[in-house]
Amino acid sequence: MKRMSLRGRSVLITGGAGFIGSNLAIALVRKGAKVTVLDNLTPHQGGSLFNLKPVEDKIEIDFSDIRDEASIKRLVRGKDYIFHLARQTDHILSITNPFTDIDVNVRGTAILLEAIRYVNPETRFIYTGTRGQYGKAVKLPVGEDAPTNPRGIYEITNLTAEKIIGIYNDVHGIKSICLRLTNVYGPRSQMKHDHYGVVNWFIRLAIEDKVIPVFGDGMLKRDFLYVDDAVGAIIACAACDNCYGEIINVGDPKPETFRKLVETIVSIAKSGSWELAPFTSERKAMEPGNFASDISKIRRLSGWNPKTPLRHGLSKTIDYYRKFRKHYW
Amino acid sequence: MKRMSLRGRSVLITGGAGFIGSNLAIALVRKGAKVTVLDNLTPHQGGSLFNLKPVEDKIEIDFSDIRDEASIKRLVRGKDYIFHLARQTDHILSITNPFTDIDVNVRGTAILLEAIRYVNPETRFIYTGTRGQYGKAVKLPVGEDAPTNPRGIYEITNLTAEKIIGIYNDVHGIKSICLRLTNVYGPRSQMKHDHYGVVNWFIRLAIEDKVIPVFGDGMLKRDFLYVDDAVGAIIACAACDNCYGEIINVGDPKPETFRKLVETIVSIAKSGSWELAPFTSERKAMEPGNFASDISKIRRLSGWNPKTPLRHGLSKTIDYYRKFRKHYW
Repeated sequence: MKRMSLRGRSVLITGGAGFIGSNLAIALVRKGAKVTVLDNLTPHQGGSLFNLKPVEDKIEIDFSDIRDEASIKRLVRGKDYIFHLARQTDHILSITNPFTDIDVNVRGTAILLEAIRYVNPETRFIYTGTRGQYGKAVKLPVGEDAPTNPRGIYEITNLTAEKIIGIYNDVHGIKSICLRLTNVYGPRSQMKHDHYGVVNWFIRLAIEDKVIPVFGDGMLKRDFLYVDDAVGAIIACAACDNCYGEIINVGDPKPETFRKLVETIVSIAKSGSWELAPFTSERKAMEPGNFASDISKIRRLSGWNPKTPLRHGLSKTIDYYRKFRKHYW
Repeated sequence: MKRMSLRGRSVLITGGAGFIGSNLAIALVRKGAKVTVLDNLTPHQGGSLFNLKPVEDKIEIDFSDIRDEASIKRLVRGKDYIFHLARQTDHILSITNPFTDIDVNVRGTAILLEAIRYVNPETRFIYTGTRGQYGKAVKLPVGEDAPTNPRGIYEITNLTAEKIIGIYNDVHGIKSICLRLTNVYGPRSQMKHDHYGVVNWFIRLAIEDKVIPVFGDGMLKRDFLYVDDAVGAIIACAACDNCYGEIINVGDPKPETFRKLVETIVSIAKSGSWELAPFTSERKAMEPGNFASDISKIRRLSGWNPKTPLRHGLSKTIDYYRKFRKHYW
């Protein structure tokens, strides 16, 4: 496969102070890219300047909103790669009020694409969606051709953004990759509340020596992915010419149960405990069941593979939050 | 199957002065329903008061915008059935500017659903999407479980609205039906430009004795549905308890070629002609290929079947527009 180097290339990362965005920014700086981060640091969303501390002297940061058309036009100019991670990511907000998701995730993506179309149509565009776009798995592992029946507004708006990107790719010739990321965990996720990734939230509870509630019988399976692996996948795809125009899963074909997850967290943390808890009816309606990603496509197209065993990733995550707790709690 | 009567029931039709909406309003008045039409008569969209002439003394009309939250809350109160047909429907606008589609079709639907959830959660909600939500057919005829890969912003936003409705059905308990209508033609569609239904546009060209351009080799197939049949399907589903919670195709399993369509139009109109024309590259990218709806589900759930042969429907349509041309051109 033909692989492009990101050294010396100008990149924009929307949502670049957030969980995955900041890890991506750090990795791209290490690869020699010239990184601009766009993040408006919306309170209670994932953005935090502390996340970017390791590279703060090596990047530019712009605090515009993704919906600010003039700023977006200015920012996309001259960029070789645009990684679009800005999102309304609060699952609880998205079920009580659908409008922010529609505005940020759908309209925000369209604003970015229109700016690219008019100002910089030769750029390369990489979007990170979610495995939640599939909804309940019809069979496991879940390939990219599986039905997409998302069970929440956040997941629907992510799917809509992906489909709009497909139009800009096919009709307007914008070179694009749409990734579908599984449950990602690791350093640099905000930990203030439980509206985001469940793994990191469980880690907080363990660090605080609290009881982790595991819904149902704890035997639901998910493929948990360490954030360095997710970032590796994003960069591997961006660098591969044959990934453009494609929808690509990023996950792990070997899922683990929630019970195994919390047992591992508690055993590494040496604090906290867990117990089974009944589903609320709302959670039950949105619960997509077992999930594992079919990653044969990304392996074939980019050569990427997840590298971090769950125990190792959890251990690094627990160490990170113990060390930097005051910046995340 | 258990069938409910609409006689004496209060119904709201959003987009009720438009093509399908006005035909639906007239049919519902004839069935004895108390009809309120919501339509802001956006210029160059389908809404027209002339469409409602036959029932103007028997309905209420409200000119609010579907995005006007206060008006929507007022309008949904006390309605037994809400038929949601208001849409940004201009295919050409939707490809040059995605924002109106997102705002009207996605956010507008969410505004309506939120109003229902707070003001009238016991209502019954019927949504008319499009077969364009499928995109290119993987196999024919296309069933409701087929992949949904829409090839335009209009179609994407219709799919998004459908998926949001699914959440309100599943999570918030709003009783909903999502229909996917094939190419509908017939009286009461605006005819000012070619940004809407292709069949009606071809009829205008024939009436004006012009040349009808048929893209490609004319052998593409579609299932064309006369508007009275579409309206019959909408009402049949609304009246059937077992249709709620379902996504249901409305179409005809016997498709016809575009060549057959235009030959029939020209032979009935006794004016106009047709010729083959090459696809533009933009049209080519958005062209979904042959299409025919699998309607076994609607037959099973509601007993509905299309009744109007193509030749008969075209003939009634040509008569209508010849008679009322000045109101539509």
